[in-house]
Amino acid sequence: MTRKPLDLAQALIRCPSVTPAEGGALSLLADVLGEAGFEVHRPVFREEGTPDVENLYARWGTGSPCLVFAGHTDVVPPGDASTWRHDPFSGAIEGGELFGRGAVDMKGGVACMVAAALAFTAANPEAPGSIAFLITGDEEGPAVNGTVKLLEWARARGERFDHCVLGEPTNPEALGDMIKIGRRGSLTGRLVVHGRQGHVAYPHLAENPIPGMVRLLAALGAEPLDAGTEHFDASNLEVTTVDAGNPATNVVPAEVRATFNIRFNDTWTPETLEAEIRRRLDAAAGNTVRYTLRVEPTNAVAFLTAPGPFVERFAMAVEAETGRRPALSTTGGTSDARFIKDHCPVLEFGLVGQTMHAVDERVAVADLDRLAAIYRRFLDGYFGAAA
Amino acid sequence: MTRKPLDLAQALIRCPSVTPAEGGALSLLADVLGEAGFEVHRPVFREEGTPDVENLYARWGTGSPCLVFAGHTDVVPPGDASTWRHDPFSGAIEGGELFGRGAVDMKGGVACMVAAALAFTAANPEAPGSIAFLITGDEEGPAVNGTVKLLEWARARGERFDHCVLGEPTNPEALGDMIKIGRRGSLTGRLVVHGRQGHVAYPHLAENPIPGMVRLLAALGAEPLDAGTEHFDASNLEVTTVDAGNPATNVVPAEVRATFNIRFNDTWTPETLEAEIRRRLDAAAGNTVRYTLRVEPTNAVAFLTAPGPFVERFAMAVEAETGRRPALSTTGGTSDARFIKDHCPVLEFGLVGQTMHAVDERVAVADLDRLAAIYRRFLDGYFGAAA
Repeated sequence: MTRKPLDLAQALIRCPSVTPAEGGALSLLADVLGEAGFEVHRPVFREEGTPDVENLYARWGTGSPCLVFAGHTDVVPPGDASTWRHDPFSGAIEGGELFGRGAVDMKGGVACMVAAALAFTAANPEAPGSIAFLITGDEEGPAVNGTVKLLEWARARGERFDHCVLGEPTNPEALGDMIKIGRRGSLTGRLVVHGRQGHVAYPHLAENPIPGMVRLLAALGAEPLDAGTEHFDASNLEVTTVDAGNPATNVVPAEVRATFNIRFNDTWTPETLEAEIRRRLDAAAGNTVRYTLRVEPTNAVAFLTAPGPFVERFAMAVEAETGRRPALSTTGGTSDARFIKDHCPVLEFGLVGQTMHAVDERVAVADLDRLAAIYRRFLDGYFGAAA
Repeated sequence: MTRKPLDLAQALIRCPSVTPAEGGALSLLADVLGEAGFEVHRPVFREEGTPDVENLYARWGTGSPCLVFAGHTDVVPPGDASTWRHDPFSGAIEGGELFGRGAVDMKGGVACMVAAALAFTAANPEAPGSIAFLITGDEEGPAVNGTVKLLEWARARGERFDHCVLGEPTNPEALGDMIKIGRRGSLTGRLVVHGRQGHVAYPHLAENPIPGMVRLLAALGAEPLDAGTEHFDASNLEVTTVDAGNPATNVVPAEVRATFNIRFNDTWTPETLEAEIRRRLDAAAGNTVRYTLRVEPTNAVAFLTAPGPFVERFAMAVEAETGRRPALSTTGGTSDARFIKDHCPVLEFGLVGQTMHAVDERVAVADLDRLAAIYRRFLDGYFGAAA
């Protein structure tokens, strides 16, 4: 049986699955996919200090290649529902738009994937290969009991994936704008400059750490980290906070702290980047500035799904349905693609992201139909070529 | 009648006059000075939002010149009394030292002034001129209802002063080290650099204020404000805090704030100094850094009681009693002398400050006797010369 993407999206929005609540969303998908011949699993992952999270894994077919659709049904909180034009969990339609938390991030995208997969399997019951769904309920939360563990769980079961399409909202302005073929890495550093507290009237008895911090932060930002690479923008460092927290105007503080975050491209690994940061800090500190730097462990390394047949086939499907040639981009923040890339090549394409996480999150009904058509066209090509 | 400085100091320490409490200290002085022929007044000053404060004004004689002794009987809190070797209000004596909160700051100094004045007036009942006491209970607190209002009150009564000795603990190591003949001014500035909040992954949509702050703070400290003057050290700027207060490592903050304090010499007035600061900030900010600066109103301007007969007579008294030639200094923090200097020339000389505001605050009993002798010797010379 087939489903309209609008109906699926509306039904999902009506499930109050504010992270980490399942809210009925995964059960709905389990029913729909099960009816269509998918083998459905509902693993729950637990870890002390984080909420238990329900997840869904479904697979149609056992053959190869296996194309995975990945996504999530948890949503961020709606905030004050009274400020929304329509109740955020009502799935109201007005002026050709479907309203609700998750409309674009990413219940709408999940609905389009499922609709496309159902249409494809209904039309091609004997198609070789397989289609799988990796749907988590922990993308908007701590992201501990979601995609990472679901991938490990699947690998332990012997599941092997050839390519993955992640349905996050990737289009800045209009459907067809942008496919994400990689993501920059993210590295956070915590910097402390140490001094000696004292009275401002006796500076020779104190050691103010703030001028040293000023020197170190100036050195961090003095030169670009790189000039960008073929598929990546230049790496970028932002100092996100600097704090001495000293309320007394007559006291020199004992220390001052700063945090910076770097979004880095494939010029760097976290290790080479940390070494470069320490080189800059050491050069600026000399023998006069006493500092400590702690770089937080990161699972966000830069990665690229190099343009090739997989990406090109998807881009052609987008162009055929929208008339737009999508940019192949690596911009923006991190996503669960950084975990999937260790299992198979992954690209990201979904709805238009403008209203994500905002009041009155909404999606054009026409975009739902077109996104489902893109996914369907891609599946036809993917399995046609594979056949 | 005369009094021993040790007895007076011990009796004052036993009055629990933690600011703004009077604790019996001013009543004790009123009794002692009244018995010795001083006309005593006990004005209480009030201002909304601050505690009412008792003060004392006493005068012996009506003639000229009038030498004023200034000081305070309020003390800072003792902290955890159990960490003291002796109860901070017991006035215990051990190993030739008198222990207690206020021993050096400045009940000990007040005791020496009173003992010296009583000895002088007892010995010279017909001396020309007058001796006055300006004693406040609000030096360690908000300093709103203390010396400033007491001076205004006295002026309104028609009291005129020729010279003032303020008995704050001025000696760093040993009695005789240092007379303060002026103080630096103090100016506090509050700097805000404005940006635009956003996600670190989309820096082109945000405007990080921290690099601008780094540039401004570097510019403030790039060049010395001056090289010092005949009687003053170089002016000194300390950035006392810088704060963005942003806990999110993936967010660019909207603004960052910093506070700086300048201890400035007689090169500057608050107005010329603010102009120089703004000149430096404007030059560094150019058209790219949006900042606002608020300079707090200050009543702490740099002042100097130029060396001359008054200072020299006092220095000779110090040298005669201690064998040390005191440095004539303008170092350290601000004091009530900055208010007195608008009424008459003022110098500061008191006990050794090492234990002030600390646990086990204490004074050598021998220092009390020597300080009283210095004050007495000065009075003899001052009125002898005036006679």
